[in-house]
Amino acid sequence: MNTPFAYAQAQAERFEQNLFELLRIPSVSTDPAYSADVNRAADWLVAHMNSIGLQAEKITTDNHPLVYAEWLGAGDEAPTVLIYGHYDVQPADIDDGWHTDPFEPVVKDDGFVYCRGATDDKGQLFIHIAAAEALLKSGGSPVNLKFILEGEEESGGESIEEYIEAHAERLRADVCIISDTSMATPTQPVIISALRGIAPMELHVSGPRQDLHSGSFGGSIHNPVLALAQIVSQFHDEQGRVIVPGFYDGVRPLSDADRHKMHANAYTEDQWRSDTGAPQPWGEPGYSLRERIGARPTLEITGIGGGYADAGFKAIVPQKAVAKILCRLVADQDPEQVIQAVSDYVAQITPPTVESEIIRPMSGSRAVQIDTDHPMMQIASAVYEKHWHAAPVFQREGASIPVVSSLQNKVGLPVIMMGFGLDSDGLHGPNEHFSLMMFHRGVQTMIDFHQRLASA
Amino acid sequence: MNTPFAYAQAQAERFEQNLFELLRIPSVSTDPAYSADVNRAADWLVAHMNSIGLQAEKITTDNHPLVYAEWLGAGDEAPTVLIYGHYDVQPADIDDGWHTDPFEPVVKDDGFVYCRGATDDKGQLFIHIAAAEALLKSGGSPVNLKFILEGEEESGGESIEEYIEAHAERLRADVCIISDTSMATPTQPVIISALRGIAPMELHVSGPRQDLHSGSFGGSIHNPVLALAQIVSQFHDEQGRVIVPGFYDGVRPLSDADRHKMHANAYTEDQWRSDTGAPQPWGEPGYSLRERIGARPTLEITGIGGGYADAGFKAIVPQKAVAKILCRLVADQDPEQVIQAVSDYVAQITPPTVESEIIRPMSGSRAVQIDTDHPMMQIASAVYEKHWHAAPVFQREGASIPVVSSLQNKVGLPVIMMGFGLDSDGLHGPNEHFSLMMFHRGVQTMIDFHQRLASA
Repeated sequence: MNTPFAYAQAQAERFEQNLFELLRIPSVSTDPAYSADVNRAADWLVAHMNSIGLQAEKITTDNHPLVYAEWLGAGDEAPTVLIYGHYDVQPADIDDGWHTDPFEPVVKDDGFVYCRGATDDKGQLFIHIAAAEALLKSGGSPVNLKFILEGEEESGGESIEEYIEAHAERLRADVCIISDTSMATPTQPVIISALRGIAPMELHVSGPRQDLHSGSFGGSIHNPVLALAQIVSQFHDEQGRVIVPGFYDGVRPLSDADRHKMHANAYTEDQWRSDTGAPQPWGEPGYSLRERIGARPTLEITGIGGGYADAGFKAIVPQKAVAKILCRLVADQDPEQVIQAVSDYVAQITPPTVESEIIRPMSGSRAVQIDTDHPMMQIASAVYEKHWHAAPVFQREGASIPVVSSLQNKVGLPVIMMGFGLDSDGLHGPNEHFSLMMFHRGVQTMIDFHQRLASA
Repeated sequence: MNTPFAYAQAQAERFEQNLFELLRIPSVSTDPAYSADVNRAADWLVAHMNSIGLQAEKITTDNHPLVYAEWLGAGDEAPTVLIYGHYDVQPADIDDGWHTDPFEPVVKDDGFVYCRGATDDKGQLFIHIAAAEALLKSGGSPVNLKFILEGEEESGGESIEEYIEAHAERLRADVCIISDTSMATPTQPVIISALRGIAPMELHVSGPRQDLHSGSFGGSIHNPVLALAQIVSQFHDEQGRVIVPGFYDGVRPLSDADRHKMHANAYTEDQWRSDTGAPQPWGEPGYSLRERIGARPTLEITGIGGGYADAGFKAIVPQKAVAKILCRLVADQDPEQVIQAVSDYVAQITPPTVESEIIRPMSGSRAVQIDTDHPMMQIASAVYEKHWHAAPVFQREGASIPVVSSLQNKVGLPVIMMGFGLDSDGLHGPNEHFSLMMFHRGVQTMIDFHQRLASA
């Protein structure tokens, strides 16, 4: 009998082919036009996970389905690991600047596979499926395995919250592992110590009952696009501090120890320039780049639209304009309170010449703090150190994984966020990619984790 | 032999059918995807005008074709009338709020035909083609007739400017008639005494080299959508006066007589509310609604776009954002100077955290003043009064018809802008429509104009 490590090495190429099949399904959860594809991705996962020895099922919800799978053959005395991941992806269109079809995986000379979802999160979740297969096909897993995979992470994640509320018992385990975050560099692993929450909103500004001829009415009417810009421009001061009253209410101040830890793991301006390509940093005065990204709340305009912005001109005063607002929250902000603060402020600064409205297309989530002293963290550290030749650093993550809070608080699980991607993987942007070397090393790391956990 | 008036009455329904054929061709000039349709509309016009006794030809250009037609059978002693019109239309999409297919003419119970281009300008230019047919098929026209029709009025009109430059002699006439403007009400004709010019620009703001994950970088980078909003918000003061330095340079002050005339023909706030559906007027302090629209320059944002503004959320810091800026100019502003002033101002207020650029997708035009004391104006007034039972008022038009300045100055023609549409026809917006009653009355009016001109 081969070891699971050898099995994974032998099957490396077939693991990649399986992953590419999953990547080809455009499971965009934010756009209703792709619902059937989201479903197809869930079906693919159920079939594949059943084929490798797990018992998998699709769980229908009011929105996109969940996938649950388990293998409990290690017995009652063995520890149980719950893996969370998401199989839905952000929208992607060739016109956004992709060099290749966003839903056709392409392996380039750099050893990365390019495809929407490559790193976020199909590639990272597939590490766990491949590790499970390697264990199950090499004499069985030393730990019981559970998987809960959702198809709405990029679009609100209501369904998994409802499922956790109703079926917490089924998800019970000794630890929950999530791979949906980044390493600092290809040689520096990271375990996440905090996640930001989110408060998503849409700001709608409207004026005339329909688009008007700009020559016949322009100059006499408050253009909703202009009014929207004027409102949006009042969210921050000149340096980048949010000036919405009450926005920072509840923000837990950074302790000296926190700041010291973040300083030790500083994000240099050079690295920032190289990652972003932008002229120079911006943001809340008094905080380092690392603190601005991970430890402070933000108010981001993720999209804006109104009138006619395509090729050529449409000589109109547009009927309306919209801005998408995504706030990232830190402990102990309340998303409801933040949305209320923004709504109140918008209502207060909207002039009587237009109408404005804050719409809530999806729910918010609170920030999460992780207990980095938990014994399971020692195992995670050890396997990272073994396979990546560097002890992981603990880092606050700027992004948000809303389900983590529920898994911690409602299911009572210690959550370990072990990332195998990179911030430079282009997640949410064009040409998203994922290192296949890091993928395979991730599989080895997780096999080792499960084995060490069983003998701990 | 019937009179041309009787001929037009007898052929009224067929005239409508001909117009509907032209309306069905989606000759959108601002979008390259419709080039073939613009060409098809030109071909249709050439064929139709040849069939009614004119000699018509398509003139190819670097962009969309021109259509020229003439009938010079009235002889050297008779006056010659040049008709200008444009057969291209603004973009239209059912999702913009159209109740019916934007390129399928529908006659509703209100007696209006609904279709993109119904009033701007296919319906209005077809008045002149129908009047020419009525004269030519009833014993010949008492005046020589020339038509110059362009397919780029909505997208810059470069080609007709080049044609006028090279072929002014061919367009020589005693008067030029243009029907591309509105009456004040269905019973109150208007002759235009001034037109605004235009200065079109695109403002591009960019930051990172591509879209970034808003969780991983938000808070540390100046979001280009936010920066665009901040720049756009600095174009006007709180009340609506443009604060770009130099923007009002060269603006000819309104004389007391001008203001008196405009005041006599005031645009009431009630009428404005009914036309726009907007909460309340806005604009440059110290000027009436009529003055803001017709006599003062404006800086309008006709469109804005950046990031992801469709259904759902894309958690990104967008790579770039764009605003379409359309300035309307009055005498004696210079479009080059206005574009320079905006460019300089944008460069000055752009923070070092993003990059901005002003792009000029099409050329600008100067405002036009019309000599309302010209003898031809008496004839235009008389036929309006005869057929509409009200003497026309002279009005400044907020919109722009760039070719008018060239026809006046380079061809040396007196231009009379006789509108048969209404500002409430929804031009440039959804559900554009045109009164068929006003269409047929327009045909009668123009037959009468040509006859009176011949015997003047």
